[in-house]
Amino acid sequence: MRELFSFLSEERVLVDKEDLLLYSYDATPSRRYPIAVVRPVSTEEVVEIVKVASRKRIPLVARGAGTSLSGAPLPCEGCIVVDFSLMDEIIEVDEVNAFVAVQPGVVYEALNRELAKHGLFFPPDPGSGSVCTIAGMVAMNSSGIRAVKYGTTRDYVASLEVVLGTGRVVKLGGRYKKSSSGYDLKSLFVGSEGTLGLFTEIGLRVIPRPNHHAAMIAHFDDFTEAGKAITQAMAKRLDVAVLEVMDSLVVEAVESFSGINLGSAEALVLAEVEGFDANVKEEIRRIAQVFTRRGAKVELAFDEAEIARLWRARKAALPALARLASTLLLEDITVPVSALPEMMRRIRGIGQRHNIRIATFGHAGDGNLHPTFLVENEEEMRRVSAAIEELFRECLSLGGTLSGEHGIGTEKRRYFELEHGYATQVMREIKRALDPKNILNPGKIFYGRQAYFKLR
Amino acid sequence: MRELFSFLSEERVLVDKEDLLLYSYDATPSRRYPIAVVRPVSTEEVVEIVKVASRKRIPLVARGAGTSLSGAPLPCEGCIVVDFSLMDEIIEVDEVNAFVAVQPGVVYEALNRELAKHGLFFPPDPGSGSVCTIAGMVAMNSSGIRAVKYGTTRDYVASLEVVLGTGRVVKLGGRYKKSSSGYDLKSLFVGSEGTLGLFTEIGLRVIPRPNHHAAMIAHFDDFTEAGKAITQAMAKRLDVAVLEVMDSLVVEAVESFSGINLGSAEALVLAEVEGFDANVKEEIRRIAQVFTRRGAKVELAFDEAEIARLWRARKAALPALARLASTLLLEDITVPVSALPEMMRRIRGIGQRHNIRIATFGHAGDGNLHPTFLVENEEEMRRVSAAIEELFRECLSLGGTLSGEHGIGTEKRRYFELEHGYATQVMREIKRALDPKNILNPGKIFYGRQAYFKLR
Repeated sequence: MRELFSFLSEERVLVDKEDLLLYSYDATPSRRYPIAVVRPVSTEEVVEIVKVASRKRIPLVARGAGTSLSGAPLPCEGCIVVDFSLMDEIIEVDEVNAFVAVQPGVVYEALNRELAKHGLFFPPDPGSGSVCTIAGMVAMNSSGIRAVKYGTTRDYVASLEVVLGTGRVVKLGGRYKKSSSGYDLKSLFVGSEGTLGLFTEIGLRVIPRPNHHAAMIAHFDDFTEAGKAITQAMAKRLDVAVLEVMDSLVVEAVESFSGINLGSAEALVLAEVEGFDANVKEEIRRIAQVFTRRGAKVELAFDEAEIARLWRARKAALPALARLASTLLLEDITVPVSALPEMMRRIRGIGQRHNIRIATFGHAGDGNLHPTFLVENEEEMRRVSAAIEELFRECLSLGGTLSGEHGIGTEKRRYFELEHGYATQVMREIKRALDPKNILNPGKIFYGRQAYFKLR
Repeated sequence: MRELFSFLSEERVLVDKEDLLLYSYDATPSRRYPIAVVRPVSTEEVVEIVKVASRKRIPLVARGAGTSLSGAPLPCEGCIVVDFSLMDEIIEVDEVNAFVAVQPGVVYEALNRELAKHGLFFPPDPGSGSVCTIAGMVAMNSSGIRAVKYGTTRDYVASLEVVLGTGRVVKLGGRYKKSSSGYDLKSLFVGSEGTLGLFTEIGLRVIPRPNHHAAMIAHFDDFTEAGKAITQAMAKRLDVAVLEVMDSLVVEAVESFSGINLGSAEALVLAEVEGFDANVKEEIRRIAQVFTRRGAKVELAFDEAEIARLWRARKAALPALARLASTLLLEDITVPVSALPEMMRRIRGIGQRHNIRIATFGHAGDGNLHPTFLVENEEEMRRVSAAIEELFRECLSLGGTLSGEHGIGTEKRRYFELEHGYATQVMREIKRALDPKNILNPGKIFYGRQAYFKLR
């Protein structure tokens, strides 16, 4: 292995089992060892790595921080992991064009710390933001609690330097604000989960950092009722930056885990408004009114400490739930906002029918829910598998999508064609055109290393 | 011809020369007759048309209103034009999800008239908005004077039904707010200029229609100085909805054509702010301050009639210029906002060096300029051709793009690889994968009907 990568210094080619362990997992329950890990520091090295892999037909799996909840960075059989963590330089902050150029391994929070010095920020806000990398976010089209106002990573990618599966480098986009020049390859690579190319430089549009905030917490006696209020608030087009829901199981878990008193309720809704002046207070009151009218008990929060307390509670949801069961399966469905109450009702029904515990929280303002399945044993896992399939079918029947922000990876391949139909073939054909030897993250999004299809 | 399309009623298959004349042009100077025109009224008919064309290897050119400034809907040799103007139904306005579903031939202004009844609008605002179709806008990723605030058509396309060159139908996207499920095929089709598929249904995200407006006109003694002020205003991230520039040649033409007195100047800048409350007045004053400080004479406009007068002047630019020369060549470059003053200086230099008249106006706030070449005769046309090549090279050297909103069509094919390098091959390969017989608008964006390349 080392001789294949003699252009890399020795300590940047890992082959020992104890080193490979660190690259054998992501945030899903699966594990697999790669045959090696390479740690490039430049575009040129990435090109050479791809050329070796192409010649030897060795699969390459790109890896940032490995925080994926879908299996996208999981090593596949006989693969080499390309670890981008050494390429972590913020190349340039261009204030005039509100643009920043970064290497792939820059960490989300580190970028926003740097941007804060310029009064700017990159809004998509994944739960793993303290460790996840920008290239990982681009690969998965990540977002988070602020997507309801600011959209997803795709909306901010201005340019990409990409090494294709052939070893050729393409440069896409630029720091201009718009273009009608040719196909939008840039958006095609965003969300491609490492299957179409490896990112070696990323340019992001960034925006002014808001400095006024106001928040609200609303307690409901009924989960579906909370959904109806959220749909109503969104239909009024109130300018909400965050609009989260948590069911009673999540609330209890958070209270017991973090010691934060949330006041027990069948459902909690958290909202935040942000902007550049005191209007945020008026807007949060308008939002609160919608919730009060639908029977919620509402508290407002205007000072920083109080708002921070609410977000600590929200961020504690996943670790708190992790203590309730030996395995968590965190799903990531998104439905049209109009279908939110019905989806919430159906999640309840699925839990009851299959006699399993489902804790649901999520970015309800954009229809993105994380029904989280708590699993203790093999027998329960079988029931959960059936329940998850039902969940996806219900979500799709309501006009939804399999993933709002976590991607398909290995976890949702089997349902992919249910959502996309013949478009699945079109995507596979594009994969074939760009990566003819199928060496880039094979078996992710689509199944296996089987022969490509031709469009008929 | 009629027997090939016997599934269409007779009056929807045009073959007579006088009928074909209406389909032989767009807004560029070129002309070519198709061999026939078909006018489908349903997705099923479009599928049948594509199947016939595929079997007979007859090229198909999709057409909306034919207002393109790049040649995209121009008939190619031996082609059939697919006229979508009979598919002009607004299928559904979904207020809760802020979504509208339309057939491809719906006219931009007609859609916004309907949306206004619901307090909504679709912001991209092309100069041809009174006649252009939504599918044409999607095909070209059109925008206009409001792109500086609202972005381009791509930012609003939520879903597409597309008939591929094989006759297969794919449905992409939905009315959910975000997705990380597979490749972003939707964005790939937006801006594909009819070369990848034919749109049979389009879903758009729409937004609340602002009801407060304020405007400003600034007079400068120097064209480049106006550019510097615009860059400065944009760097301050003031919330401008429109930020237009016109040089003295455009100002004179508009004054003489429309009778509107603009007060002669070396450069005029028009700005508009829009929103939902009286803050628009404060914001336009902040913008005005930037321009005053850079030596401009500034007037503000707060009432509707006065604002309308300004926009009448701006909209008159193109027809006014058309009276100054027998042929206009309207270019559409976009540079990073930081490079705007330098680009404006270089446009002046190109005009002087080649001894030609260039009238420049455009959406300067997003770096999009329309240098318009006034041409009287063959000899001048030769000099203009050299000047246009220089213009594109200068634009690209400043980090710009060949087209901000008009597309590549036939007019900029020859410069395309200069901008995109190897990515051109990747785009061609995608075209080959999706349209293996190259029957969809061949020769647009890329050259000719020559064999496809394989990625090496």
